Amino acid sequence: MSLLNQPLDPDDAAALDELQSFRQSIDNIDAALIHLLAERFKATQKVGELKAAHGLPAADPERERRQITRLKALAESASLDPVFAEKWFNFVVAEVIHHHERIASGEEA
Amino acid sequence: MSLLNQPLDPDDAAALDELQSFRQSIDNIDAALIHLLAERFKATQKVGELKAAHGLPAADPERERRQITRLKALAESASLDPVFAEKWFNFVVAEVIHHHERIASGEEA
Repeated sequence: MSLLNQPLDPDDAAALDELQSFRQSIDNIDAALIHLLAERFKATQKVGELKAAHGLPAADPERERRQITRLKALAESASLDPVFAEKWFNFVVAEVIHHHERIASGEEA
Repeated sequence: MSLLNQPLDPDDAAALDELQSFRQSIDNIDAALIHLLAERFKATQKVGELKAAHGLPAADPERERRQITRLKALAESASLDPVFAEKWFNFVVAEVIHHHERIASGEEA
């Protein structure tokens, strides 16, 4: 039984409908995620400007450790793989630090 | 003027307060992001199960292209770097495909 073979049997047709419904939910969630990421970057942009103006380093490993511990606990309570949550956080923070370094070097206003 | 040199002048003290306020917002946004990611994975888990049951491949490059185009447009309208949005999406999708492959191979229920 494969959706790649035509014609569709009723079971496969129902599966395609269900797939479409899940994809719509994923698209809605992704739109929300993008908008929240935009808000997060607005806040970290401000943090980067403050840090640059007051001579603070772009990275703050102690705060990052606390954030990771907290986010892993939140992930577990939400049934999200905490290892993925940590990898995801590190990915986002790497981008933020890259931005902070650009701000400190005067490349961004 | 550096926050690393004590004592703090009033300007630096105000900056630290402001930094703390932005960090609280970042922590709130991160909690929301983690919970939305958990919902996203619930949906992609269902998609993975459907795909495995109906013999569909784990990856769908055509859909991914459409998603990236859409998310980059959403990012631009929200003043988020569209290049970052694309990198971020690819990071999340790589994890999802990894999960789908595990489902298809029978490692996950």
